[in-house]
Amino acid sequence: MALPDSWLSPIPTPSHSHAATASERQNTLTKPPGSLGQLEQLAITLCGQQHTDQPSADRVHMAIFAGDHGVCDEGISAFPQAVTAQMIGNFAGGGAAISVMARQLGAALEVVNLGTVGDVAEGLPGVIDARIRPGTRNFALEPAMTELEVAAALQAGDAAAERAHRAGADLFIAGDMGIGNTTSASAIACQLLGQPPESLTGPGTGLNAEGVRHKAAVITKSLARHGSDTAPLAVLASLGGLEIAAITGAILGAASRGIPVLVDGFIVSVAALVACKQQPELQHWLHFAHHSAEPGHKAVLQALMAQPLLNLGMRLGEGSGAAVAVPLLRAACALHNQMASFASAGVSDQSGD
Amino acid sequence: MALPDSWLSPIPTPSHSHAATASERQNTLTKPPGSLGQLEQLAITLCGQQHTDQPSADRVHMAIFAGDHGVCDEGISAFPQAVTAQMIGNFAGGGAAISVMARQLGAALEVVNLGTVGDVAEGLPGVIDARIRPGTRNFALEPAMTELEVAAALQAGDAAAERAHRAGADLFIAGDMGIGNTTSASAIACQLLGQPPESLTGPGTGLNAEGVRHKAAVITKSLARHGSDTAPLAVLASLGGLEIAAITGAILGAASRGIPVLVDGFIVSVAALVACKQQPELQHWLHFAHHSAEPGHKAVLQALMAQPLLNLGMRLGEGSGAAVAVPLLRAACALHNQMASFASAGVSDQSGD
Repeated sequence: MALPDSWLSPIPTPSHSHAATASERQNTLTKPPGSLGQLEQLAITLCGQQHTDQPSADRVHMAIFAGDHGVCDEGISAFPQAVTAQMIGNFAGGGAAISVMARQLGAALEVVNLGTVGDVAEGLPGVIDARIRPGTRNFALEPAMTELEVAAALQAGDAAAERAHRAGADLFIAGDMGIGNTTSASAIACQLLGQPPESLTGPGTGLNAEGVRHKAAVITKSLARHGSDTAPLAVLASLGGLEIAAITGAILGAASRGIPVLVDGFIVSVAALVACKQQPELQHWLHFAHHSAEPGHKAVLQALMAQPLLNLGMRLGEGSGAAVAVPLLRAACALHNQMASFASAGVSDQSGD
Repeated sequence: MALPDSWLSPIPTPSHSHAATASERQNTLTKPPGSLGQLEQLAITLCGQQHTDQPSADRVHMAIFAGDHGVCDEGISAFPQAVTAQMIGNFAGGGAAISVMARQLGAALEVVNLGTVGDVAEGLPGVIDARIRPGTRNFALEPAMTELEVAAALQAGDAAAERAHRAGADLFIAGDMGIGNTTSASAIACQLLGQPPESLTGPGTGLNAEGVRHKAAVITKSLARHGSDTAPLAVLASLGGLEIAAITGAILGAASRGIPVLVDGFIVSVAALVACKQQPELQHWLHFAHHSAEPGHKAVLQALMAQPLLNLGMRLGEGSGAAVAVPLLRAACALHNQMASFASAGVSDQSGD
């Protein structure tokens, strides 16, 4: 299978002129200059990304990518692998956190099933069958995926971005579901950032201190097996994550189609790190939703020069942190689009005129 | 004029049993325990405050309290006093930040005019005439208000809380508008916390470093004039803020009627500090929206043992930071009310069962 176009084709550039116009507008609005803090830059950046004077985060497309992880054989997760398939049912049934948030936001929600160990019922509403294999191979013993499997996962992510584009999405959110995926994500981050596993490994869904030590040891052993290649395709193939590869493809696909991306927590940020390593221009399309409580997130955010909007101690995945941050983007847009200017409202500015 | 009942009558206690039930429910929902971070405690606390198993932040009552400050004679603000009255017009006209946010949230918005130097047009929609005097006296020279004037302002705040109660509000937000009011708020915080003006004085709407030094010097001189009385009524009378006194009364009035309060930034937090000094039980009714960029806010938040939800560098006032945080409370409620349990969704919990 071929790689998606967005893997190698140039990522477009946001509009400098729209951003400049937006910046000027912010300084005419009835507020002390700068007093809306990060919301001002958020509106300005969205204007540039959307090539508009009236930015919007109304139409949100959320795609949750689900897949299992062979490395669970090493006993690195607090939850059994069966949960990945069960949660796909819960997403479709409307009972998961991200399902609730999608309703709350009026956002489109799709679940892309890349392959689970447990069975997923046929024909679940909103679930797209993109199965590549029933979970990755155990990367403590062998490469998690072949490069063909990685390409298929990237394509599955790109296809989600294409659906978002056809739906006219203002904003793209990728989410993750995969028991064991913090192990894969920590391993990828260690490989790309050159940091030791002890510093980027955390409790995931709920390991105790002994569990975290074991998980870091598994990653250390695995990294020694896979060598020093930091090419994005090689790293994804070695250390996996069907869903992490798909998210990488989805983010690149969204940006290549001119759709800004709101990055969720640890897993999605690691996918963004892989994607930015492949295509550094991607950074101009990324907004960061939150600081996850997962300890490795901090280093990944620093590497991406990210300034997340929220820091609520969330660590759920599913795109839930991004979903919770969407109203901040909507507030930024509404304030930018609807506030009066000093002149139009007859309010004196700092000069007293 | 008499003080409102909420000034001395006991503040009610949130329901421990509803909070306990909510806490148990959080641990049955389909997510790793604790993985929604602060949103979990937010839902639990709201259940206790609202005496319910289904918390809500749908019906939000916002009251913006506006008044002028005689201490502006000392040259402590980047904007002229005329702006206070002009902004009342802008609130009513729908062009201010808080007007935009109220529409965005479907929230009730009222503006309580406690007295401005500039003229406010008669009959502006949503503006309540509660004029006490055309701005406080200059507290660098004399007490800002008489105790009777403070009582009238407290009553005006209490009346807003009563309107919120009659409207069935789930949540109360107070906002401020008053050129010069960071000077008053910093002075009050210094008096109550025993800290030097240099540490609690900031740029407000946009002073430069020299302006901040002058502002701190004005506060230092004023505090020396007013002596060491830290009784809330005396502090309000000495150092003013018609709108700060009204917010103090509004917050106490909301809590006394069983309505949780979402505290905005520096000005409202200082009013909360005064209110908590008068009625320590009030703290059980307060949620804190954000860290303001105004430097004195940090010490006030610490004194209130507050853990704000947002830190976006906002410093606008008007209740805007609280408004931006409302969707986080709504998310917490929706997740608490609508997520499936492990049992109902057929998802395995940590034990693998």
